[in-house]
Amino acid sequence: MHKSKLGGLIIDCESNDLAAAAEFWSAALGAPLKEPLDTQSDQYVKLDMPPDSPYVEVQTVDHASRVHLDIESDDIAAEVRRLENLGATKVAAVKDWIVMEAPTGQRFCVVPAENADFETRANKWPD
Amino acid sequence: MHKSKLGGLIIDCESNDLAAAAEFWSAALGAPLKEPLDTQSDQYVKLDMPPDSPYVEVQTVDHASRVHLDIESDDIAAEVRRLENLGATKVAAVKDWIVMEAPTGQRFCVVPAENADFETRANKWPD
Repeated sequence: MHKSKLGGLIIDCESNDLAAAAEFWSAALGAPLKEPLDTQSDQYVKLDMPPDSPYVEVQTVDHASRVHLDIESDDIAAEVRRLENLGATKVAAVKDWIVMEAPTGQRFCVVPAENADFETRANKWPD
Repeated sequence: MHKSKLGGLIIDCESNDLAAAAEFWSAALGAPLKEPLDTQSDQYVKLDMPPDSPYVEVQTVDHASRVHLDIESDDIAAEVRRLENLGATKVAAVKDWIVMEAPTGQRFCVVPAENADFETRANKWPD
Protein backbone atom coordinates (compact mmCIF):
# COMPACT_ATOMS: atom_id res chain seq x y z
CA MET A 1 0.00 0.00 0.00
CA HIS A 2 1.22 3.48 -0.78
CA LYS A 3 -0.35 6.93 -0.70
CA SER A 4 -0.54 9.99 -2.90
CA LYS A 5 -2.46 13.20 -3.44
CA LEU A 6 -2.25 16.53 -5.25
CA GLY A 7 0.77 18.20 -3.68
CA GLY A 8 0.86 21.59 -5.25
CA LEU A 9 1.18 23.64 -8.33
CA ILE A 10 4.32 25.11 -9.77
CA ILE A 11 4.24 28.29 -11.80
CA ASP A 12 7.08 27.78 -14.30
CA CYS A 13 8.32 31.10 -15.65
CA GLU A 14 10.63 31.33 -18.66
CA SER A 15 12.81 34.03 -17.18
CA ASN A 16 16.07 34.72 -15.39
CA ASP A 17 14.35 37.13 -13.05
CA LEU A 18 12.87 35.10 -10.21
CA ALA A 19 12.33 38.22 -8.12
CA ALA A 20 10.09 39.83 -10.73
CA ALA A 21 8.20 36.59 -11.42
CA ALA A 22 7.66 35.96 -7.72
CA GLU A 23 6.61 39.57 -7.15
CA PHE A 24 3.85 39.33 -9.75
CA TRP A 25 2.46 35.99 -8.60
CA SER A 26 2.72 36.85 -4.93
CA ALA A 27 0.70 40.02 -5.53
CA ALA A 28 -1.72 38.37 -7.95
CA LEU A 29 -2.58 35.58 -5.51
CA GLY A 30 -2.27 37.74 -2.39
CA ALA A 31 0.25 35.30 -0.93
CA PRO A 32 3.53 36.56 0.55
CA LEU A 33 6.78 34.74 -0.10
CA LYS A 34 7.29 31.99 2.45
CA GLU A 35 10.98 32.74 2.84
CA PRO A 36 13.11 35.70 1.80
CA LEU A 37 14.28 35.43 -1.77
CA ASP A 38 17.99 34.79 -2.21
CA THR A 39 18.46 35.60 -5.85
CA GLN A 40 22.04 34.35 -5.67
CA SER A 41 21.03 30.74 -5.41
CA ASP A 42 17.28 30.21 -5.56
CA GLN A 43 15.58 28.98 -8.67
CA TYR A 44 12.19 28.81 -7.02
CA VAL A 45 10.28 30.33 -4.16
CA LYS A 46 7.25 29.15 -2.22
CA LEU A 47 4.22 31.32 -1.65
CA ASP A 48 2.59 31.29 1.77
CA MET A 49 -0.85 29.83 1.07
CA PRO A 50 -3.66 29.19 3.59
CA PRO A 51 -3.55 25.92 5.57
CA ASP A 52 -4.69 22.82 3.67
CA SER A 53 -4.14 24.51 0.32
CA PRO A 54 -1.85 22.71 -2.10
CA TYR A 55 1.52 24.48 -2.07
CA VAL A 56 2.24 27.07 -4.76
CA GLU A 57 5.77 27.70 -6.01
CA VAL A 58 7.14 30.13 -8.57
CA GLN A 59 10.08 28.75 -10.51
CA THR A 60 12.30 30.08 -13.29
CA VAL A 61 12.80 27.65 -16.18
CA ASP A 62 14.39 27.68 -19.61
CA HIS A 63 11.38 26.16 -21.37
CA ALA A 64 8.13 27.94 -22.23
CA SER A 65 6.18 29.31 -19.27
CA ARG A 66 3.44 27.10 -17.92
CA VAL A 67 1.82 25.80 -14.75
CA HIS A 68 2.39 22.21 -13.69
CA LEU A 69 0.99 20.00 -10.98
CA ASP A 70 2.93 18.02 -8.39
CA ILE A 71 1.55 14.74 -7.09
CA GLU A 72 3.08 14.01 -3.68
CA SER A 73 3.62 10.43 -2.52
CA ASP A 74 5.26 8.40 0.23
CA ASP A 75 6.55 5.93 -2.40
CA ILE A 76 7.69 7.58 -5.61
CA ALA A 77 8.45 4.35 -7.48
CA ALA A 78 5.08 2.78 -6.65
CA GLU A 79 3.24 5.98 -7.54
CA VAL A 80 5.05 6.23 -10.88
CA ARG A 81 4.04 2.63 -11.65
CA ARG A 82 0.44 3.41 -10.72
CA LEU A 83 0.42 6.44 -13.01
CA GLU A 84 2.07 4.50 -15.84
CA ASN A 85 -0.75 1.96 -15.52
CA LEU A 86 -3.18 4.84 -16.00
CA GLY A 87 -1.41 5.85 -19.22
CA ALA A 88 1.18 8.40 -18.11
CA THR A 89 4.80 8.11 -19.25
CA LYS A 90 8.06 8.82 -17.48
CA VAL A 91 9.97 11.77 -18.95
CA ALA A 92 12.92 12.33 -16.61
CA ALA A 93 14.31 11.87 -13.13
CA VAL A 94 15.41 15.13 -11.51
CA LYS A 95 16.85 15.15 -7.98
CA ASP A 96 14.29 13.24 -5.90
CA TRP A 97 11.31 13.66 -8.21
CA ILE A 98 10.09 12.14 -11.45
CA VAL A 99 8.78 14.20 -14.35
CA MET A 100 5.88 12.48 -16.12
CA GLU A 101 3.59 13.26 -19.04
CA ALA A 102 -0.16 12.65 -18.84
CA PRO A 103 -1.96 10.91 -21.71
CA THR A 104 -3.65 14.30 -22.18
CA GLY A 105 -0.24 15.92 -22.78
CA GLN A 106 0.53 17.93 -19.63
CA ARG A 107 3.83 17.43 -17.83
CA PHE A 108 3.58 16.90 -14.07
CA CYS A 109 5.92 15.75 -11.29
CA VAL A 110 5.77 13.00 -8.69
CA VAL A 111 7.49 14.31 -5.58
CA PRO A 112 8.13 13.23 -1.97
CA ALA A 113 5.18 13.98 0.32
CA GLU A 114 5.56 17.23 2.19
CA ASN A 115 2.20 18.84 2.89
CA ALA A 116 1.09 18.79 6.54
CA ASP A 117 -2.22 17.18 5.56
CA PHE A 118 -0.61 14.32 3.64
CA GLU A 119 -1.15 11.64 6.28
CA THR A 120 -4.79 12.49 6.83
CA ARG A 121 -5.82 13.37 3.29
CA ALA A 122 -3.75 11.25 0.92
CA ASN A 123 -5.41 8.52 -1.15
CA LYS A 124 -4.41 4.95 -0.32
CA TRP A 125 -3.48 2.67 -3.20
CA PRO A 126 -2.94 -1.12 -3.05
CA ASP A 127 0.42 -2.11 -4.57
CA MET B 1 -12.79 47.36 -1.60
CA HIS B 2 -12.99 44.09 -3.40
CA LYS B 3 -11.73 40.59 -2.71
CA SER B 4 -9.96 37.81 -4.58
CA LYS B 5 -8.03 34.60 -4.07
CA LEU B 6 -6.80 31.56 -5.93
CA GLY B 7 -9.99 29.86 -7.05
CA GLY B 8 -8.82 26.69 -8.66
CA LEU B 9 -6.89 25.06 -11.40
CA ILE B 10 -8.16 23.94 -14.74
CA ILE B 11 -6.59 21.03 -16.56
CA ASP B 12 -7.01 21.98 -20.23
CA CYS B 13 -6.86 18.91 -22.45
CA GLU B 14 -6.52 19.19 -26.23
CA SER B 15 -8.98 16.42 -26.96
CA ASN B 16 -12.55 15.68 -27.95
CA ASP B 17 -12.75 12.92 -25.37
CA LEU B 18 -13.68 14.51 -22.06
CA ALA B 19 -14.53 11.12 -20.56
CA ALA B 20 -11.04 9.75 -21.14
CA ALA B 21 -9.35 12.93 -19.98
CA ALA B 22 -11.48 13.06 -16.84
CA GLU B 23 -10.91 9.37 -16.17
CA PHE B 24 -7.13 9.82 -16.17
CA TRP B 25 -7.04 12.91 -13.97
CA SER B 26 -9.69 11.61 -11.58
CA ALA B 27 -7.64 8.44 -11.06
CA ALA B 28 -4.30 10.27 -10.99
CA LEU B 29 -5.45 12.70 -8.29
CA GLY B 30 -7.68 10.18 -6.48
CA ALA B 31 -10.63 12.53 -6.81
CA PRO B 32 -13.98 11.25 -8.10
CA LEU B 33 -16.02 13.31 -10.54
CA LYS B 34 -18.24 15.74 -8.68
CA GLU B 35 -21.22 15.13 -10.97
CA PRO B 36 -21.94 12.45 -13.55
CA LEU B 37 -20.39 13.21 -16.90
CA ASP B 38 -22.85 14.09 -19.64
CA THR B 39 -20.71 13.72 -22.71
CA GLN B 40 -23.51 15.13 -24.86
CA SER B 41 -23.11 18.65 -23.56
CA ASP B 42 -20.31 19.01 -21.06
CA GLN B 43 -16.98 20.52 -22.01
CA TYR B 44 -15.62 20.32 -18.50
CA VAL B 45 -16.09 18.36 -15.31
CA LYS B 46 -15.21 19.14 -11.71
CA LEU B 47 -13.26 16.76 -9.52
CA ASP B 48 -14.37 16.28 -5.92
CA MET B 49 -11.43 17.66 -3.94
CA PRO B 50 -11.10 17.87 -0.12
CA PRO B 51 -12.67 20.88 1.65
CA ASP B 52 -10.68 24.11 1.44
CA SER B 53 -8.76 22.87 -1.61
CA PRO B 54 -8.91 25.06 -4.69
CA TYR B 55 -11.32 23.46 -7.17
CA VAL B 56 -9.92 21.28 -9.92
CA GLU B 57 -11.65 20.97 -13.30
CA VAL B 58 -10.82 18.94 -16.37
CA GLN B 59 -11.75 20.71 -19.61
CA THR B 60 -11.44 19.84 -23.29
CA VAL B 61 -9.97 22.61 -25.42
CA ASP B 62 -8.81 23.09 -29.00
CA HIS B 63 -5.48 24.67 -28.06
CA ALA B 64 -2.42 22.86 -26.71
CA SER B 65 -2.92 21.04 -23.42
CA ARG B 66 -1.92 22.95 -20.32
CA VAL B 67 -2.93 23.76 -16.76
CA HIS B 68 -4.24 27.20 -15.94
CA LEU B 69 -5.15 29.00 -12.73
CA ASP B 70 -8.41 30.72 -11.91
CA ILE B 71 -8.44 33.74 -9.62
CA GLU B 72 -11.90 34.14 -8.08
CA SER B 73 -13.25 37.54 -7.15
CA ASP B 74 -16.40 39.31 -5.99
CA ASP B 75 -15.70 42.13 -8.48
CA ILE B 76 -14.30 40.95 -11.80
CA ALA B 77 -13.76 44.41 -13.26
CA ALA B 78 -11.91 45.70 -10.19
CA GLU B 79 -9.80 42.55 -10.00
CA VAL B 80 -8.87 42.82 -13.69
CA ARG B 81 -7.78 46.43 -13.10
CA ARG B 82 -5.72 45.36 -10.09
CA LEU B 83 -4.00 42.64 -12.13
CA GLU B 84 -3.42 45.01 -15.06
CA ASN B 85 -1.68 47.35 -12.62
CA LEU B 86 0.58 44.42 -11.68
CA GLY B 87 1.50 43.90 -15.33
CA ALA B 88 -1.02 41.36 -16.60
CA THR B 89 -2.93 41.96 -19.82
CA LYS B 90 -6.51 41.22 -20.83
CA VAL B 91 -6.79 38.56 -23.56
CA ALA B 92 -10.50 37.86 -23.93
CA ALA B 93 -13.89 37.96 -22.25
CA VAL B 94 -15.64 34.58 -22.23
CA LYS B 95 -19.07 34.20 -20.64
CA ASP B 96 -18.69 35.70 -17.15
CA TRP B 97 -14.93 35.43 -16.86
CA ILE B 98 -11.91 37.28 -18.23
CA VAL B 99 -8.88 35.54 -19.72
CA MET B 100 -5.64 37.31 -18.83
CA GLU B 101 -1.94 36.79 -19.50
CA ALA B 102 0.65 37.18 -16.75
CA PRO B 103 3.83 39.19 -17.42
CA THR B 104 5.55 35.79 -17.05
CA GLY B 105 3.53 34.43 -19.97
CA GLN B 106 0.92 32.10 -18.46
CA ARG B 107 -2.74 32.52 -19.31
CA PHE B 108 -5.12 32.57 -16.35
CA CYS B 109 -8.77 33.48 -15.74
CA VAL B 110 -10.54 35.88 -13.41
CA VAL B 111 -13.86 34.26 -12.48
CA PRO B 112 -16.81 34.93 -10.15
CA ALA B 113 -16.14 33.75 -6.58
CA GLU B 114 -17.53 30.32 -5.89
CA ASN B 115 -15.44 28.46 -3.30
CA ALA B 116 -17.10 28.02 0.11
CA ASP B 117 -14.08 29.57 1.83
CA PHE B 118 -14.09 32.72 -0.31
CA GLU B 119 -15.61 35.02 2.31
CA THR B 120 -13.26 33.93 5.08
CA ARG B 121 -10.07 33.45 3.07
CA ALA B 122 -10.10 35.94 0.23
CA ASN B 123 -7.61 38.80 0.18
CA LYS B 124 -9.07 42.30 0.54
CA TRP B 125 -7.92 44.98 -1.88
CA PRO B 126 -8.59 48.73 -1.66
CA ASP B 127 -10.10 50.09 -4.91
